[in-house]
Amino acid sequence: MSNFQLIKKAGKARRGRIKLFHGTVETPMFMPVATNGAIKGILPNDLIEMDAQIILANTYHMFLRPGMEVLNEIGGLHKFMSWDRPILTDSGGFQIWSLSKLNKINEQGARFKSHLDGAIFDLSPEKAVAIQEDFGSDIHMVLDECTDHPATYEQAKSSMERSMRWAARCRSAKTKGELSQFGIVQGSIYQDLRKQSCEQLIDIGFDGYAIGGLSVGEDKADMREMTELSCDHLPEDHARYLMGVGTPADLVESVALGVDIFDCVMPSRNARRGTLFTSEGRVSIKNSKHKVSEDPLDPNCRCYTCSNFSKSYLRHMFFVNETTSHRLLTIHNLTFYLDLMHKIRQSIESEQFDELLKQQRSIPY
Amino acid sequence: MSNFQLIKKAGKARRGRIKLFHGTVETPMFMPVATNGAIKGILPNDLIEMDAQIILANTYHMFLRPGMEVLNEIGGLHKFMSWDRPILTDSGGFQIWSLSKLNKINEQGARFKSHLDGAIFDLSPEKAVAIQEDFGSDIHMVLDECTDHPATYEQAKSSMERSMRWAARCRSAKTKGELSQFGIVQGSIYQDLRKQSCEQLIDIGFDGYAIGGLSVGEDKADMREMTELSCDHLPEDHARYLMGVGTPADLVESVALGVDIFDCVMPSRNARRGTLFTSEGRVSIKNSKHKVSEDPLDPNCRCYTCSNFSKSYLRHMFFVNETTSHRLLTIHNLTFYLDLMHKIRQSIESEQFDELLKQQRSIPY
Repeated sequence: MSNFQLIKKAGKARRGRIKLFHGTVETPMFMPVATNGAIKGILPNDLIEMDAQIILANTYHMFLRPGMEVLNEIGGLHKFMSWDRPILTDSGGFQIWSLSKLNKINEQGARFKSHLDGAIFDLSPEKAVAIQEDFGSDIHMVLDECTDHPATYEQAKSSMERSMRWAARCRSAKTKGELSQFGIVQGSIYQDLRKQSCEQLIDIGFDGYAIGGLSVGEDKADMREMTELSCDHLPEDHARYLMGVGTPADLVESVALGVDIFDCVMPSRNARRGTLFTSEGRVSIKNSKHKVSEDPLDPNCRCYTCSNFSKSYLRHMFFVNETTSHRLLTIHNLTFYLDLMHKIRQSIESEQFDELLKQQRSIPY
Repeated sequence: MSNFQLIKKAGKARRGRIKLFHGTVETPMFMPVATNGAIKGILPNDLIEMDAQIILANTYHMFLRPGMEVLNEIGGLHKFMSWDRPILTDSGGFQIWSLSKLNKINEQGARFKSHLDGAIFDLSPEKAVAIQEDFGSDIHMVLDECTDHPATYEQAKSSMERSMRWAARCRSAKTKGELSQFGIVQGSIYQDLRKQSCEQLIDIGFDGYAIGGLSVGEDKADMREMTELSCDHLPEDHARYLMGVGTPADLVESVALGVDIFDCVMPSRNARRGTLFTSEGRVSIKNSKHKVSEDPLDPNCRCYTCSNFSKSYLRHMFFVNETTSHRLLTIHNLTFYLDLMHKIRQSIESEQFDELLKQQRSIPY
């Protein structure tokens, strides 16, 4: 029941391909995050130009606004957003944990207060699946309980076990064979809990597996260790998705540990704040040294922004016109992430991933 | 010395063509306003897609930020903005009058305080020309004194006469033969002053003529009367530009009086506020009746927004994502204006301008 095809390996790094309802995606891959149904300033024509294969939308946000009445009437997320390539949606669990004003979680599910207007909603594993199937998400995620960080072993164990029971309920609730469902590994930073979580998810059987509960404040070393351990215990013939990660360095290092899929708000959020990722390291466009500079942001970048505008113009826009600046800088950062994944895919194919890893480690991101 | 070619007339309405340094433009035409070197959220690729022939940039804003040091180093506005079609710049006089914290005007020129940081600058007719020539503007405007509204006859006469002396100084200061310079008719709402102003400008001799000092609070009837009177006294073989006007109805009615060129912030500013111009009249996207609507904003519009998104999505974006909303709605309003001008040009060519005028008068803009 896997739709993942493993094409080539370089150590633990994997070059693969996933067949989804709205198209085939090449891995390793990165998903831009369209929180409210769009990345700020970016429309599908930009995403096509930067060659985004798939995007992520947030269930929590779309469920609250525009809400299911609108989305069901329009006929799902793809039509609403005018995006005909694949979409992955999270389950809403993470935002209930991080955003909602009040949340009460018991075995049945979560009761939460909207961060927008205080309205109260219930979300169960079954409802999370139904909502995402109504969205028409190519990949939808099981509802899990987000374990606090730090957590004691007992807290982490009890939370992970609930997430596994919820995962089983999500799998039973799934009705649409053409859409994929991913389970989520939990277990905080405890090796045996992560291992148990992997085993239980495999027993249930999903179309792919995500590694959750990381990038929430733990040390980088813990994050890497838990990522590697999870990858080592997940099946070779299924896709692996490290949720909410991360910097360009995180992406490359995690691919080396066996991860196939990433999402992160960092490239778009940093862009809006004037921080750019380039082949020469981080650039702050606010810096006065860019005031008079004909150079592009990144001489090695193919994006619309780098092909057409000087750092001088980008700095000017950052200070005078927020809307245009968001768009210009986000186009660059997302293209940088997508192109990095493209380079990673090529390097695995051409057996040069180790060289890429070494070269990437020398860049001051 | 005119670069205007009159192709066809329909009553006083004119179908024409202007040869400029960066390309030929077809009239009647509308210029989107890129105040600070960009329309909010809109980049050159959008402008090309909507087929903007020429854009307007504001001298006052660009002079203050990024400033002449940057613009001279980069090599002018076209390169800075990555826009290779024509640009018209105003002289800065209007913004000194409307935006600067303090302005002192005498026969020599204007002394003003930047609205940004209080820095003090002097602007003379000669300096206004030099700045715009450094910009590389295809059309640059003479520095004029903006007459207050309302103004007594004596005030209007004295102000207009100073503007005419400044116009002569601007003409003498012009050094670049390949760039066009337009004079500006003043005279408030006094017929004989407008007439004198036209005559004096013609004596000086410009590449085209603008009608200034309107759309500043006077009655529509006064605006129309002054526009018609000015057009009647300006030479047939030169382009006529009605500055800062207006609604779609103003555009059509003013073409009927003999105007060739328009600019206005209304389509972009209204878009950002959620007010759209459509073939069926004004639409407020905030209205709750659009909450569940699969329909495009305007079923008769070719723009990217109307071709891809429902009113439901546009309303959602208006409330959740300002940056994306600015872009989506501005694309529509600007395309609507540009397409209206296209229809006007076609109707004059096909001798159906009267029918278009009648049809446009029935739309509840």
